[in-house]
Order: sequence, then structure tokens, then C-alpha cells
Amino acid sequence: MLVPPPERVAVLGLGLIGGSLLRRLADLEIPATGYDADPATRAAAGAAGSVAEAIDGADLVVLAVALPAAGGVLDELRAAGYTGLLTDVTSVKTAPLRLVAERCPGARWVGGHPMAGREQSGFAASDPALFDGCAWVLGLEDSTALEDWLRLAALVTGIGARAVPATAADHDTAVARISHAPHVLAAALAAGAARGEAGSLALALGAGSFRDGTRVAATRPALTAAMCGGNAAAVRAELDELIGRLVEARKLLHESDPVAALTPWLEPGHAVRSSWPAEPGVPEQRPATREVLLALGRAGGWVTEVGADGETVTAVLPSD
Amino acid sequence: MLVPPPERVAVLGLGLIGGSLLRRLADLEIPATGYDADPATRAAAGAAGSVAEAIDGADLVVLAVALPAAGGVLDELRAAGYTGLLTDVTSVKTAPLRLVAERCPGARWVGGHPMAGREQSGFAASDPALFDGCAWVLGLEDSTALEDWLRLAALVTGIGARAVPATAADHDTAVARISHAPHVLAAALAAGAARGEAGSLALALGAGSFRDGTRVAATRPALTAAMCGGNAAAVRAELDELIGRLVEARKLLHESDPVAALTPWLEPGHAVRSSWPAEPGVPEQRPATREVLLALGRAGGWVTEVGADGETVTAVLPSD
Repeated sequence: MLVPPPERVAVLGLGLIGGSLLRRLADLEIPATGYDADPATRAAAGAAGSVAEAIDGADLVVLAVALPAAGGVLDELRAAGYTGLLTDVTSVKTAPLRLVAERCPGARWVGGHPMAGREQSGFAASDPALFDGCAWVLGLEDSTALEDWLRLAALVTGIGARAVPATAADHDTAVARISHAPHVLAAALAAGAARGEAGSLALALGAGSFRDGTRVAATRPALTAAMCGGNAAAVRAELDELIGRLVEARKLLHESDPVAALTPWLEPGHAVRSSWPAEPGVPEQRPATREVLLALGRAGGWVTEVGADGETVTAVLPSD
Repeated sequence: MLVPPPERVAVLGLGLIGGSLLRRLADLEIPATGYDADPATRAAAGAAGSVAEAIDGADLVVLAVALPAAGGVLDELRAAGYTGLLTDVTSVKTAPLRLVAERCPGARWVGGHPMAGREQSGFAASDPALFDGCAWVLGLEDSTALEDWLRLAALVTGIGARAVPATAADHDTAVARISHAPHVLAAALAAGAARGEAGSLALALGAGSFRDGTRVAATRPALTAAMCGGNAAAVRAELDELIGRLVEARKLLHESDPVAALTPWLEPGHAVRSSWPAEPGVPEQRPATREVLLALGRAGGWVTEVGADGETVTAVLPSD
């Protein structure tokens, strides 16, 4: 099985992620055309004038619009008869999997999610180096053709990212933990600190832990709501978990020696954060099978290269 | 009322904060002697060999040890007959206020807290520029002599920090919001993300929001526990507030349109964080009275200079 790279890429939506991708592809001299609904962005990016024009001749379409806008673009792709490779960059994976099956079932779908956000958004904030070394999840379902997955993996590893194989369900559980719930916590912390008469002094005293703990509360509420609302069940489960932990900490602070009581409760979080991010282990050649890839992703590993014959991948696991 | 600067400062405890202060005082050519219980730190800092030696001739003693060690040092100060100005740098203010009243009642106490932490600790991490522009709370109780407060304020503003007047109770409420609760949240987030079989993938996908939301979980658990446990009532109240907000977010994510439901809930945190930190307003001369100072601190303001006559201060409020 050969894994030919895409001959022409269409990037639909030129915000931070789409814009950065289009610029990176241009740097690598991979033929790519962009499109954005905003005329000023199209002008700034030298983009095509319509979706139909952008996808003309493309064998990979990257859906880089926010999830609420995705349905309309999928309708255009279907109307244009697009049946090639299709991926996205949104921060949830179950919802687009269902949406594509419904609105553009003829396309060969491999969901994608580069873990490379910023508080800034828009083409003006785009940066071709945005994906260097970042984890880029590529959805591997029972319904995914392995060849399609490997073609996408070859592209994202060529861009310099780590291709992480995961099912949509596993992805959505993971990002609820490490992105969506942290966004909700940040908003709660910022709003809570500022409340009432004591708020002014509190904000005047805010330093490092407040700055970092609330940083992502500066993200536009519509974006955060789309992320969390598009992954509502997993985020609810994660909030339950966190509420449970905070209730526990609260109880320990009621004991006669709260310092001694709280110390062991803090240890697991300390152990996790002190050894994160893990150093990459030694790269190894692995057979490019569905089972090997999914096991690699579940173990916290990733693919750094796809063999040209499509038979093997270069796999890396975090070192202990 | 004249506000003479201290003639000789003793800094007891030469970790990150005490070490940075000692080095800053040396840079400013303010006579200062340090002491630390650890012989290697004493050697590195060129410190005195005992508490008694360090405080010999000092008219300001800065207690820069962790709260659990403070009682023993206060006993030494009392045994040495110290009756001069005494301050500290710990992250809670009610507990040391009580402790000093009990263990060293002859000293003139003004509690202090520079908002300038780091994950690193110890003299090796110290930095004379650590306090540049930071908020430095100075406790102003009914029992505090205004002259003592102003002498301390003259010193910390001379160091380049913002002197923030606050009662111990108001301080402890504020830091529960902007420091102690964020430390508990960070630990919960880090430990929660790593749990169970899904933990490895989650940690592999962790990016900016996880990195920042959990940063302070890397602080030594004993330090975080001492902070939070030393301010247990205020931290419990803040955890209640945050748990309530998370329960609310969880409910909104259960609505039929969770994106629309969550958006307005995110707005207050977004508004707070987008305008934080506030730009300083125009400095103004204010009478140096207890009422003026406490009102300034409650309004989120600070003192940047103390008039040499002790009658006025230069006050700054955050601009709107």
C-alpha cells in the first residue's frame, strides 16, 4: 500500500489554525488554496473567491471553520460532488464525525485536531510555525480507511506535528480533561475573584497563579462555549470529577490540622505536573496497523513519520 | 511625624523571598544582615551565624521563614529582647498576627506579603528584581501604629514594590481567591487529567490551557498545604463559591442548546480577565491617615511613595 501525499490541499476557513496551516503548506511548497467567508481575510491571504474555486482539483479538503459553520460548508462540498479526503481542525471529534456522515457522506473523513490554540484568533494571528512539535490528533474509527489515516498522518508529520491516533470518543474525553474543563475553571476563577466588595483588592493582588489559572478566560466566550457545548457530555463528566475533588479538599481543610490533611491530597497533582510534559522516548518502527496505532495513542504515544510504503510508522512513546 | 528609614534590617530565612530581599537591600546599600537555618545557604548568602547575631543592632526584622517555622524564630526574638519593627512575608496574615501577639508581643508588628511567588524556591532562585512593580500588602489593623506602617511602606516602595494597605482579614479573603484556591484547582486539574486508562492520552494532548491551568501544581505540596491550611476558613469559602459556579456550568451544559446556554455564563470571567491587570491611574497625593489608606487598598489601589514628613502618600488607583 503506497501513501502518496495529497497533490492539492484546500483550506476552508483562514482563522488562526487554517491561516497558519495554509502558510505552512506554502512554505513547504505543497500546492494549497484557501478560502474564507470574510472578504478582507481572503484578500490578506490571497485566497480563492469561493468554496467551489478553492476545492477545484483538491484531493484533500481541510475544514477549518468553527463547528457551528461547518454544516453549511459541508453542504457546499456535497453540492460540488466532493468525494476526496476530508479533515477538520475543531476541538471536538464526535460531533463532526456525525455531521459529516449526515451532510457530506461521500467524502473520505478523517477528523483532525491540532493541539495548538492561542488566545488570539484570526488570520492576523496566524503563524506557520504554530504546529511545530504539537500533538495533532487524527481520528481512527472502525469506519476510517487506514490508508486515508496514513495519508493525513504523512502530511501532519511532514508539517512537524506529532500525529496522535485516537477514536473520536477517546479524543473527546481527553480534551474535556485538558482543555474544555480548564476553560470553564478559568472563567469561574476570574469571575469569582472579582465578585462583590472584596473584588477590587483581590484583583490588585493577583499575581502568577491568578494570571496563569485564568489566562484562557480571555478567550472569546462564543469560542469557549462552542468547544465545551460541542462536547457537553464529556465536559459534564469532567466537571463532576473536579467538583468531587474540590469537595474533598474542602473537607480536608476542615480537619483539626488542615496542613497535614491537605498535603497528601496535593501529592498526585504535584507528581503529574512535575513530570509533565514527559520527554519523548526512543523512536521505534512499528507495523502500520489499526490495532498498533490505537494502542500507541492510548498509551500517550504518537507517530513522527509514515513509511513511504505505508507498511510501517515511526512511533514514539513518552519516556518514564 | 517623621518617617525615618530603618537603619539596619535583619532578614531571617533566606529562601526565594528572603534571599531576594536581602540582595535587593544590598543593591540599594541599605545595611542588612541575613540568617538561615541551613549552613550552606548561610555560606552562599554571606549570612550571620545565628539569629541573635543577625538581629544585633537591627531596627527592622523581616521574618522570611515558612509559617510553621515562625513560632520558633519568634521565641528567639523574644528571648533576645527584640522590641523593634517586625514584619513577615508569608502568604497569610491572620495567623501570623495571632502568633506574634502570643509569642513576641513586645515587637512592633506590621504583617507583610509581597505577591511575588515562583515555582522555584530557595536562595539559589533568589533575584533582587523579584519585587519590581509587585503588590506588597502591609497589614493595617486597629492595633498597628500608623508610623510603623509608613516606615515599612517607605521601605517597600523604595524597593520598587506597590505598598497595598489591608487588614489581615481582607488580605486573607483576597489571597484565597487569587492564589490559594487557584493552587487547589491546579492540583485537582492535574490529578484529574491523569487518572485511569484515559490519562496517558490526555497528558499527551495537554497544551496551553493545561500547562497554565496546572502550573502551580508543581509547587511543593508542603508549601501549598501550609498556605491553604494557614488560611483554611477563607479557602473553604472560596472553594464553596467555585463549586457553586461549576455546578451551574454543569447544569447549563445539560440544556438542549448548551452552546447558547453556556455563553452568557462565560461573559463575566471574560470581562474580568480581558481587562486584567488594570492600567495604573494617575498618581495623587493623599493624606496619610488610616481611613484613607484602608479605603485605598479596598478600592484596589496602592501607595508608590511615602512623604518624608509622614503626612502624605502618593496613591494610585487602577484606571477604569
